[in-house]
Amino acid sequence: MSTATRLEDAIAELAGFNDDPAAGGITREVYTPTYRAALDRVAKWMRDAGLEVRLDAVGNLFGRWEGAEPDAPLVLTGSHVDTTLNAGRYDGVLGVLGAIEAVRLLQEAGTVPRRSIELVAWAGEEPRFGTGCVGSRAAAGRLERADLDRLCDRDGTSMATALRDAGFDPDRLADAAIDPATVHALVELHIEQGVVLETGGESIGVVTAIAAPHDFRLGFRGAATHAGATPMHLRRDALAGAAEAMTALERIVRASPSGTTVGTVGAIRVRPGAINVVPGTAELDVDVRDSDLGARTQVVEDVLAAAREIAAQRRLELELTPIVEDVPVACEPGVVAAAEAAVRELGLPYRRMTSGAYHDAMVLGSRVPIGMIFVPSAGGVSHHPDEHTDAADLERGVRVLVGTLARLAA
Amino acid sequence: MSTATRLEDAIAELAGFNDDPAAGGITREVYTPTYRAALDRVAKWMRDAGLEVRLDAVGNLFGRWEGAEPDAPLVLTGSHVDTTLNAGRYDGVLGVLGAIEAVRLLQEAGTVPRRSIELVAWAGEEPRFGTGCVGSRAAAGRLERADLDRLCDRDGTSMATALRDAGFDPDRLADAAIDPATVHALVELHIEQGVVLETGGESIGVVTAIAAPHDFRLGFRGAATHAGATPMHLRRDALAGAAEAMTALERIVRASPSGTTVGTVGAIRVRPGAINVVPGTAELDVDVRDSDLGARTQVVEDVLAAAREIAAQRRLELELTPIVEDVPVACEPGVVAAAEAAVRELGLPYRRMTSGAYHDAMVLGSRVPIGMIFVPSAGGVSHHPDEHTDAADLERGVRVLVGTLARLAA
Repeated sequence: MSTATRLEDAIAELAGFNDDPAAGGITREVYTPTYRAALDRVAKWMRDAGLEVRLDAVGNLFGRWEGAEPDAPLVLTGSHVDTTLNAGRYDGVLGVLGAIEAVRLLQEAGTVPRRSIELVAWAGEEPRFGTGCVGSRAAAGRLERADLDRLCDRDGTSMATALRDAGFDPDRLADAAIDPATVHALVELHIEQGVVLETGGESIGVVTAIAAPHDFRLGFRGAATHAGATPMHLRRDALAGAAEAMTALERIVRASPSGTTVGTVGAIRVRPGAINVVPGTAELDVDVRDSDLGARTQVVEDVLAAAREIAAQRRLELELTPIVEDVPVACEPGVVAAAEAAVRELGLPYRRMTSGAYHDAMVLGSRVPIGMIFVPSAGGVSHHPDEHTDAADLERGVRVLVGTLARLAA
Repeated sequence: MSTATRLEDAIAELAGFNDDPAAGGITREVYTPTYRAALDRVAKWMRDAGLEVRLDAVGNLFGRWEGAEPDAPLVLTGSHVDTTLNAGRYDGVLGVLGAIEAVRLLQEAGTVPRRSIELVAWAGEEPRFGTGCVGSRAAAGRLERADLDRLCDRDGTSMATALRDAGFDPDRLADAAIDPATVHALVELHIEQGVVLETGGESIGVVTAIAAPHDFRLGFRGAATHAGATPMHLRRDALAGAAEAMTALERIVRASPSGTTVGTVGAIRVRPGAINVVPGTAELDVDVRDSDLGARTQVVEDVLAAAREIAAQRRLELELTPIVEDVPVACEPGVVAAAEAAVRELGLPYRRMTSGAYHDAMVLGSRVPIGMIFVPSAGGVSHHPDEHTDAADLERGVRVLVGTLARLAA
């Protein structure tokens, strides 16, 4: 069986672990029973490839291929197998199943790596609990025990409770931290989730920097009064204020001088939420990103100033809840060079590029040398049932990963 | 026991029928088991007052006090005992329990009405199914069998299913229609739900006209793409379009020449609703009201034109779903005169006014002569746990209702 077929079959099989198939896409949020079943399937594939499998304290799944020098700093590669709501089948999954396939190809070629190679499926890259990359954050030592109680999903379940329900012990969080001295390099294979490669006609993106999100919650509080009996000038309409703030956000982001800033309100909660009641509260989940930290900081400051002014003019209270503030990271030149050498050896058209999306590699990037390899996403569609990457592109990505791992582990 | 105390006690007891006491207010939506239990309690109070009780095909509860001339067109009075989400205890309830108290006072005074007096608790005045006043609409013959399948609550349960689950038969809808020739007048006692009486220092409002809502749903559809990897100029963000439409709505309503138009977006649904995904769909529940039909029509037209332009500029699809379009009604001069005579006899300060909120009386107003009596709402707060009317004002409202019923039934 060809690499492309074997990989496509595995991706299709994993897509069957789905909590909402009727919606057309895949819903497999971290720490659910469906997620756990998918993780068990991945562990079996890892064992079939001869890897030694273990789960850490927060549910990160590792598969180890011991190198000729077991004590040498190792090479990590992987991504995640959790999804957002009604998502696609490639995001994250390619980086995990593609790594298993890469190990198989290395083994078939008789490669004996000097360094150990560890495959990983990080827990909770998607932000079920508001914050994304919780597994890689734990590995980077960037998650506190208190965070596990503070971070809650949309149903109000805390990450600590979700961990406990999934059979993990939140009090053992610190055990998940990885000593940076034990890691030589981390490389993550991923779909681009944008149209840069498709537009440029390149097969591979070698990532040089990763844009990072600043996420926060803006809560507007007014007065829930009768929609018929409250004249316009006597209203304190929380949603009207939130709507004005959303248009201000869009205007400010579009005017950002970096040209690479993006800003999104992805979720909104309105109470009480009846057609005949002026909304008393409106809560916005805001995400601002850039690979240019200065531009991002200025945009967030301007958005908060605008929100405060809107709230004051409308006699609304404004509450700001921090969610996450990550620092954009540069990829390590040695990892980038290994990936570029692998692409050139294969003779593939490629592009050096920044990643607009964040990834687990970004979180680890402050502790260990990282790099990323992108393959094209059809139409740039991601986090959506129509997410697609051609089989030939999947295989090219795996072959570049093979060459990169061979170089890094040598 | 005084009228005020008896009424307050009954209102407090009914407030105990509550599906969400933890929220602080009252949640008792029509056709739920909790609603049915509350209705049974009201039926018992009616029977204790000597009334002959019956439920119609859609759950409207009637209590009949037979007059000296049983075949003469009767006098109807009542309101509703369902609530919105996390609501107050007076809205609707006063008009039902106050009417029972009024009957008691008439009986204690030895009154023998010539016309029969029927008390009513209309089913579903609050818009659980998007449309309000479903019980009085059925009584007015303004609800079709097909509407019962079309109208759905926020969980997707149709009104037909809710009726069936509550033990009613949706196919008997037509049985609920009332022959207008059998009704001499309808009068509804209600809290104002605004600050007009409080501001003016009046105890009673005699309503001369009722503003009516035009409700509809605006659905924006764009593309759910990755919040990090989709540059601003390539987005089709449904929520950003909806936010712009909400600010346009507010601007258009405020500029309405009638000066009495109000417009509200009370509920919004965004999909997929994750912080790292550009919203693919955003749905707004819009309510526009005025006692001036011409002004309201113009505002709705302008809002729809603005929404269409916003959608076109942003490459979004726009879907308009009608919910309800009611006609403002004038109260009948004879009913207004009876209420005014009753207030003057009691020597209370009062005001002739229009109602910004709609009521079951409005729905019946196209078929039978109607009138309404308002008592003050503290701070104008309604549809909210803080909704409050002083006991003295409650009693004044009941005493005006007594005088009005005595005149209308004589």
